Amino acid sequence: MNAPVMAQVRRTIPEGFLDVLAQYFGDRCSMAEAVRDHHGRDESPYPPMLPDAVVFAQTVEDVVWVARHCHQHGVALIPYGVGSSLEGHLLAIQGGVSLDLSGMNRVLKVHPEDLTATVQAGVTRKQLNEALRDTGLFFPIDPGADASLGGMSATRASGTNAVRYGTMRENVMSLKVVTADGRVIETANRARKSSAGYDLTRLFVGSEGTLGIIVEVTVRLYPLPEAVSAAICNFPDLDAAVRSVIEIIQMGVPVARVEFMDASAVRATNRYSHLSLKETPLLLFEFHGSPASVREQAGQVQDITHEHGGMDFEWAEQPEDRSRLWAARHDAYFAGLQLRPGCRSSTTDVCVPISRLAECVVQTVQEMDQASFPYTIVGHVGDGNFHVLMLLDPDKPDEWAESEQLNHRLVERAIAMEGTCTGEHGVGLHKQGFMLTEHGQDALDLMAAVKTAMDPKNILNPGKVLPGAFAH
Amino acid sequence: MNAPVMAQVRRTIPEGFLDVLAQYFGDRCSMAEAVRDHHGRDESPYPPMLPDAVVFAQTVEDVVWVARHCHQHGVALIPYGVGSSLEGHLLAIQGGVSLDLSGMNRVLKVHPEDLTATVQAGVTRKQLNEALRDTGLFFPIDPGADASLGGMSATRASGTNAVRYGTMRENVMSLKVVTADGRVIETANRARKSSAGYDLTRLFVGSEGTLGIIVEVTVRLYPLPEAVSAAICNFPDLDAAVRSVIEIIQMGVPVARVEFMDASAVRATNRYSHLSLKETPLLLFEFHGSPASVREQAGQVQDITHEHGGMDFEWAEQPEDRSRLWAARHDAYFAGLQLRPGCRSSTTDVCVPISRLAECVVQTVQEMDQASFPYTIVGHVGDGNFHVLMLLDPDKPDEWAESEQLNHRLVERAIAMEGTCTGEHGVGLHKQGFMLTEHGQDALDLMAAVKTAMDPKNILNPGKVLPGAFAH
Repeated sequence: MNAPVMAQVRRTIPEGFLDVLAQYFGDRCSMAEAVRDHHGRDESPYPPMLPDAVVFAQTVEDVVWVARHCHQHGVALIPYGVGSSLEGHLLAIQGGVSLDLSGMNRVLKVHPEDLTATVQAGVTRKQLNEALRDTGLFFPIDPGADASLGGMSATRASGTNAVRYGTMRENVMSLKVVTADGRVIETANRARKSSAGYDLTRLFVGSEGTLGIIVEVTVRLYPLPEAVSAAICNFPDLDAAVRSVIEIIQMGVPVARVEFMDASAVRATNRYSHLSLKETPLLLFEFHGSPASVREQAGQVQDITHEHGGMDFEWAEQPEDRSRLWAARHDAYFAGLQLRPGCRSSTTDVCVPISRLAECVVQTVQEMDQASFPYTIVGHVGDGNFHVLMLLDPDKPDEWAESEQLNHRLVERAIAMEGTCTGEHGVGLHKQGFMLTEHGQDALDLMAAVKTAMDPKNILNPGKVLPGAFAH
Repeated sequence: MNAPVMAQVRRTIPEGFLDVLAQYFGDRCSMAEAVRDHHGRDESPYPPMLPDAVVFAQTVEDVVWVARHCHQHGVALIPYGVGSSLEGHLLAIQGGVSLDLSGMNRVLKVHPEDLTATVQAGVTRKQLNEALRDTGLFFPIDPGADASLGGMSATRASGTNAVRYGTMRENVMSLKVVTADGRVIETANRARKSSAGYDLTRLFVGSEGTLGIIVEVTVRLYPLPEAVSAAICNFPDLDAAVRSVIEIIQMGVPVARVEFMDASAVRATNRYSHLSLKETPLLLFEFHGSPASVREQAGQVQDITHEHGGMDFEWAEQPEDRSRLWAARHDAYFAGLQLRPGCRSSTTDVCVPISRLAECVVQTVQEMDQASFPYTIVGHVGDGNFHVLMLLDPDKPDEWAESEQLNHRLVERAIAMEGTCTGEHGVGLHKQGFMLTEHGQDALDLMAAVKTAMDPKNILNPGKVLPGAFAH
């Protein structure tokens, strides 16, 4: 069972192109099948589509060299971080060069007074937080995977902390980018705000490697909260949980995290992570602040959940309990997979205004309950963002088709509710089919015009983000 | 005394163009001198540059009609809100049509559960907050002037609340925009986050009417804080004040406002607003939250300021005292003008990383103290953003030249300190000369490519944002 890849013609690599590449980069250029295979896949359900070569960049100059060379010869160029994207972003559907930036992994500068850090694109979020250990600061964006900052910028990633700290959109201050033709630009300076011209930073954030190659990222940091506590609250049903969250947010309680898990996800997590959570729909909370403020937030949240039928309110105040709980939440994906040993998964990612969230999830559950395969639901409920993890038998092609239909109806439902086809995973290949419904012809034309202006030869991660009809 | 306007050729209006406009719009189209004069100026020090006609739009269809018509005939089109821009954004340097959107002033939808409101571009921030009166919500962005939401989006405005609530960049969720050729697009939906394609929203935010005409704005709202308090703290010098703010922010104290005023600004404010503030450098704070949280924030801030030589900590807990204090802060501009009766002013607007703020202001003060005219300094110090108000004698042309030199050196200093030539006012005409220094040739080329892609005939507010060499 595999997702179908839309037919795209692999470009012909001009004769001698790869030889020049190999000669220039030596053992930092590989055409070995295993290396190309590794770089021709991501965490999506698609089969691998191999690039013709992989180059391991170590400097901005390396990237410039590759971009110029690919630009000159019209060869596709796909920036590669750690390969954790979920929707087929990295697949070399037109062949070409995969440019692996994981070796560009130095933390360049930390400015504790300004709450900023500048890192090379290959630095991962965990690595950055490790480097910040003695500063009293942290970088909160946490998409689960230990993704690279370059990749997180390129997909406009977020995760469990976004309700309090925002997404990469809000937390990238500036980027160093190599353009399609090999020029190096800085999109902004380190001022916290600026009105000086077009917002190139946010144009590159979320562009999935199609507008430029991100080589450095300057991000905002935050003071480590003086106190942190976490709590779990069980609910009789989803609606009660969502109503609670709406009221919590309307009250202005600055929760740091509020995550929803359905009963199946809880069951899976109990088994996988050896926990004994009550197997009902539940909310997982985290509170950051001064000790008094954390107590106050928790008290307010407890009152609100209680009014909405929240059944318990269990604390995890010890760091080790909290770590265990959040590790379990992060492992919900792997836990889900264990519900059906040997399965492959397809994960959805829609986001709707929170007022429509309960309705959207309830309708989805009604449909999913008819499915021929098991599923779990988890959600960044404070943002209106949720994922359905569909557990598919790799030997039953019908299940893939069925899951695609369910995904299709879910996305259409989310868009009809003023939502989006992807809250945080990105478009890649898998969500291209929804771009027209979500944005309309004229907005896509405008995006295509921007793409053409910035990458006139369409060498940068070609065939991604914009559906085929809009690719120039 | 007036600022020099760079030479730009007024475009020839094709014969019959204005007649067709007048015929279509009737009394909503004016070619009267007084109306054109009103629309050919803003709050900048430039002399007015009149458009050939003014159209008062009432519907999106009106805007589409004008855009198509101007696009077809290559006539310049300048979107106009309330005329409160500060850097010459609205001046019709190439003539054409000023499109007045102030009549499009309906609050279209408020979604209290989602904390969003959708308004027509002509709605002002005070009008929006009036409309929100019974919802328990508010829209925090406050640039001082009662600007329109369309204009605030177009200039990426911010103001005193940005340290807590962000700028228009963070608070615009979606825009309805009429493109240069008269197509209508929605840049996003109402989901709090999305990874579905290029971030058109933030491309239009800060584009100063040069990429499209904003006709509707969807913004984030916030719960009115349960408790609010304000305080004033005097300091022996600027450095002590800034050091306090750095520490406050590093501690993660969520101050809602922290504003700096130099002794001259305080003196001017005392006279103008009949206050008796101690005439030293001071910080004005506002705290938002629950009563306990506000007390705690204030206590932390008091401790920190005390350690840094803060001399007093005076409270303004009554709403009327607070209102008076913030009204006085907002009137600092007018108060400053009174320091030199009959003067005209030139206001600067730089923003630097906060670690460089004290150094930047101190060097600026050293230069300003040598100036032949008086000045005041106020700043959104939590953002590293400050303004020098230079009070110039309209009968002394030399003073204008001197103020421009001082402004020039200040901006170069800010850019050298990793800052920006404009934190919140925008580029307009006045900051174009700094765009190359700030962004570099390659980034400006990219901005110009985006402009050309989105407005190939260069009809939208031509001659603004990008310096002449980059205008196509």
